[in-house]
Amino acid sequence: MGSIRHLVLAKFKDEAAVEELLQGLQKLVSEIDVVKSFEWGEDVLKDERLGQGFTHAFLLTFGSAEDLATYIKHPSHVAFGKAFRAAIDKILAIDFPVVTNEISA
Amino acid sequence: MGSIRHLVLAKFKDEAAVEELLQGLQKLVSEIDVVKSFEWGEDVLKDERLGQGFTHAFLLTFGSAEDLATYIKHPSHVAFGKAFRAAIDKILAIDFPVVTNEISA
Repeated sequence: MGSIRHLVLAKFKDEAAVEELLQGLQKLVSEIDVVKSFEWGEDVLKDERLGQGFTHAFLLTFGSAEDLATYIKHPSHVAFGKAFRAAIDKILAIDFPVVTNEISA
Repeated sequence: MGSIRHLVLAKFKDEAAVEELLQGLQKLVSEIDVVKSFEWGEDVLKDERLGQGFTHAFLLTFGSAEDLATYIKHPSHVAFGKAFRAAIDKILAIDFPVVTNEISA
């Protein structure tokens, strides 16, 4: 079975302590074994129509849907999720099995 | 300068020829040199609230914002974009420089 991506887009509230939350998230994913990789970034397109106001993307990779489920229900994730949701205006989440195409140079 | 991700979420119309479009996209990205990697997947979360109805995620990686701009304005991309937009109910796009955290096992 292939890897599965857990993609979260968020728009933080103006008053949110974004740096603190990002550090908390980095700590969280480093402490939960099933997280294979973690990356994030801040939107640079800043196209209100195309980006629908989302400011940050978070991309986590898991070895299987079971590992993702383990992460989602992990007590540390549940606790972090509460703080995270309190700091955001909106959120979007999609999980997808990775289909990759090698690009020949 | 680090890599930049070009993330697109789409919800296809019921009658869209999704397979054909996916093949067209794979052909497109393989023909445009600046695309460093391409992956996509179909949402398995199927959470109408969290996923806001988006059914597919596309994740392209470029070496720089300049390379991404080259891709966006490439005539083949512009032509494909027309067919793509005709087949979707909605789209969301975000570009973000990759911030990665190594996960120690």
